[in-house]
Amino acid sequence: MKKHNFSAGPCILPQEVLKQASDAILNFNDDNLSLIEISHRSKPFVEVMEKAQNLVKELLELPEGYSVLFLQGGASTQFLMTAYNLMKTDGKAAYLDTGTWSSKALKEAKLFGDVDIIASSKDKGYNYIPKNYTVPSDADYLHLTSNNTIYGTQLKEFPKTEGLLVCDMSSDIFSRKMDFSQFDLIYAGAQKNMGPAGATLVIVKDEILGKTGRQIPSMLDYKIHIDKDSMFNTPPVFAVYVSMLTLQWLKDNGGIEAIEKINEQKAALLYAEIDSNPAFVGFAAKEDRSSMNVTFNLTDQSNQEKFDKLWNEAGINGLKGHRSVGGYRASMYNALPLESVQVLVDVMKQI
Amino acid sequence: MKKHNFSAGPCILPQEVLKQASDAILNFNDDNLSLIEISHRSKPFVEVMEKAQNLVKELLELPEGYSVLFLQGGASTQFLMTAYNLMKTDGKAAYLDTGTWSSKALKEAKLFGDVDIIASSKDKGYNYIPKNYTVPSDADYLHLTSNNTIYGTQLKEFPKTEGLLVCDMSSDIFSRKMDFSQFDLIYAGAQKNMGPAGATLVIVKDEILGKTGRQIPSMLDYKIHIDKDSMFNTPPVFAVYVSMLTLQWLKDNGGIEAIEKINEQKAALLYAEIDSNPAFVGFAAKEDRSSMNVTFNLTDQSNQEKFDKLWNEAGINGLKGHRSVGGYRASMYNALPLESVQVLVDVMKQI
Repeated sequence: MKKHNFSAGPCILPQEVLKQASDAILNFNDDNLSLIEISHRSKPFVEVMEKAQNLVKELLELPEGYSVLFLQGGASTQFLMTAYNLMKTDGKAAYLDTGTWSSKALKEAKLFGDVDIIASSKDKGYNYIPKNYTVPSDADYLHLTSNNTIYGTQLKEFPKTEGLLVCDMSSDIFSRKMDFSQFDLIYAGAQKNMGPAGATLVIVKDEILGKTGRQIPSMLDYKIHIDKDSMFNTPPVFAVYVSMLTLQWLKDNGGIEAIEKINEQKAALLYAEIDSNPAFVGFAAKEDRSSMNVTFNLTDQSNQEKFDKLWNEAGINGLKGHRSVGGYRASMYNALPLESVQVLVDVMKQI
Repeated sequence: MKKHNFSAGPCILPQEVLKQASDAILNFNDDNLSLIEISHRSKPFVEVMEKAQNLVKELLELPEGYSVLFLQGGASTQFLMTAYNLMKTDGKAAYLDTGTWSSKALKEAKLFGDVDIIASSKDKGYNYIPKNYTVPSDADYLHLTSNNTIYGTQLKEFPKTEGLLVCDMSSDIFSRKMDFSQFDLIYAGAQKNMGPAGATLVIVKDEILGKTGRQIPSMLDYKIHIDKDSMFNTPPVFAVYVSMLTLQWLKDNGGIEAIEKINEQKAALLYAEIDSNPAFVGFAAKEDRSSMNVTFNLTDQSNQEKFDKLWNEAGINGLKGHRSVGGYRASMYNALPLESVQVLVDVMKQI
């Protein structure tokens, strides 16, 4: 029996994508060669890369002037690449500190210059999104984390800035409609809504690059990757291919607008149970609740054994909360069906 | 019909590894979950990572004191990481320039300090390995490329140095026996003898780290990756898994000693044909010929159409030479069977 996979990432992917990926490992493109043993410069793979890039532009409705890259190293590498590429040698950057990943991002930026933490929710264990902050007009960029995977909070609005706007969307890209052209740089590890671990999506407005006065090592320089069509060196072939398949699946199923409706249904169903069932309590401030990662706990810890037994028996996987928050976390990425959430809610009703 | 795959990389992998990888995409570890949709911190995947690391140590017969990492970003990222981690702030590094990849490596190192190119074969289009060079005693490290994929040359001996010895073994690691403990740092992109694109093997002697006086961004700091057991951030799960399978396949087939004998047979067979058949001429100096990548050309270009037709009809793939050398390149990595080389030689005999 297929599990109900609530893993925080790497996470559930569409079943038909897994089937296609499995087939491609044996015989890709009917060439009697595996996807993973052909040259990345061969026509079949170059077409995969181009298709993946075009699907990103189409699904996010990006205007002209943006480049799409599939790099390696995860969001963690982007923490330093954003600073390396965008912070002027005598400049500074503004960071909104909304959780572990924001905090890690700004730590790396400090190696490159002045970092202004304009607001932080660390005071309350990152259970809310700070509001009413001011972005300094002299900051080279403002860095945001759109969804905080560990804490289950999500930015619902994005500020207007004089400098550049950079956003880590690792855990909610492709999950909700928004004006993506308000951002100058977006990055996201693939392993939530896009594909397997091993690829990092970077979307960058071309005109913002080359303005810092820094000498950047080739592999960390967005401009070099853009000039080489995201093939400066051997790309992570398999991860790019599965990302392409997942993006195609999203398009075939109505794109972001359609998936957002389902994501809203899933979130409404689970949060309603948390709020109405006295056995559970939510972690995140209500107005900042994430539709991707739902963090909650038992009000009475003596129910833990019973609850854990029930959800395990129901075929649910990956519900354990992150060690920094404890309790439970239900990650409901695009590929998780509404039915899986119903199974979880049915289990919760038994507590 | 399965192709005879002479691709330079990504390249041929053992058929049984491809089968296991394909199965794991659908159902890994009999858990009714795909390998690529489980947490990298789950027990089954942590075991994969540990097994892969242990197989590397075992196959290379590494003594105590070395750490094994599976990182992202390819050898190209190692070009800058080696310099970042090993070159002192006021130090210098020595490079042996034996081809495109050496040349790219030293270009990145120049961003970090003084680079001494102690010898180069660029004068003859990189068709040989320079000998009789002197390694400056004040160099923090000497950087070598053990096998030059594009030109088909290979280092047969390695110098003794006072500083550290660093080697890019991307295209011949696990192909021949040697004393790997003579190196302080070895790195290799996975996509030749180890697995699919997307993982980079780094083997580092622990005691050499932390001595430069540099502040290193976390993702570029070997020490951080070692402290986190190669899981500082989400590793490239699929590429690590397939690498583990390929290393297990190598062990099951007698390890490096056994595969080296087959590699020598393959090389002897093809070079004998190149040397005895007047229709062909080798590119690399005889004493420096690679057992992994065999570069050659037609003596009479009017035979090109006939030769290309014949090898295509024989089911041979990936024989086109790199654009910087032209002609042909037969890459004969570990997973390429002797029979495939025989098929190529039989075709060559018809010219």
